[in-house]
Amino acid sequence: MIILGIDPGLATVGFGVIEAERGRLRHLRHGVITTPAGTPLPRRLLSIAEGMEELLSIFCPETVAVEELFFSKNVTTGLTVAHGRGVILAAAARTGLSVAEYKPMQVKQAVVGYGAADKRQVMEMTRQLLGLASVPRPDDAADALAVAICHAGTAASLLGRLPPG
Amino acid sequence: MIILGIDPGLATVGFGVIEAERGRLRHLRHGVITTPAGTPLPRRLLSIAEGMEELLSIFCPETVAVEELFFSKNVTTGLTVAHGRGVILAAAARTGLSVAEYKPMQVKQAVVGYGAADKRQVMEMTRQLLGLASVPRPDDAADALAVAICHAGTAASLLGRLPPG
Repeated sequence: MIILGIDPGLATVGFGVIEAERGRLRHLRHGVITTPAGTPLPRRLLSIAEGMEELLSIFCPETVAVEELFFSKNVTTGLTVAHGRGVILAAAARTGLSVAEYKPMQVKQAVVGYGAADKRQVMEMTRQLLGLASVPRPDDAADALAVAICHAGTAASLLGRLPPG
Repeated sequence: MIILGIDPGLATVGFGVIEAERGRLRHLRHGVITTPAGTPLPRRLLSIAEGMEELLSIFCPETVAVEELFFSKNVTTGLTVAHGRGVILAAAARTGLSVAEYKPMQVKQAVVGYGAADKRQVMEMTRQLLGLASVPRPDDAADALAVAICHAGTAASLLGRLPPG
């Protein structure tokens, strides 16, 4: 099962593609869709839609897993990111794929084992679970891989097989 | 010039189509795109995208005018509506049209003449400016017509020609 994980945003949308087969995870690709700050909002949103369509057509995932938004402070930023997230969800729905949504805490719980894990722990576990030589960069792409792992739901069972960090 | 005005939302997106020619406004159509509450968010957003695409292809507007979001209280509702608004802006940008964004206060200022006007005043002026027998229904469609009028920028000059309310 190929899973496309997405860390939503407006300036930077992280994506991570993994394959989950019989409890094993395989890293396929990660990266970001970026939109230039000086461009009008509608045009930036269209770039995100087009980027999503490209990813969906290249990787033909079975599921798109998208992180939910969590904003305690900056409502304006939250509204802007929500614009981008809407475009991402609509692009996924257009292909008829199943779309899964996870809260940041669920992603941490699934990848590290507890919901209050910090960013570095999530990144390091993401690296280990995917057998990568270094932590994926940039952060948004690493977050997207973590969302994909969360969906795979195999993190917990894989933990036992890993060599000590 | 044909203008498509949009009052963004998730459950209900208002639309209003007008023609503005040499300072005169003509009402073409108004209505709503609705999405059922029980449906998953990605599917609802796709319905909005498809509804927008239909409107754009039927009316071939020169400009899409979309109201900005204003939320002082409910952040959760704001985030949800922002998802829908993102899809609307991306759909408009895909056609290569110009997209204009107006704050609620700008719409009130343009339609009624002052930015603190109440909802009923905006609706009644919208009715008068478009020469309609009754206030457009539902409210979201009337709001969308007001946004289109705001973009036409002709409200002030038309005011002088209207018969007393």
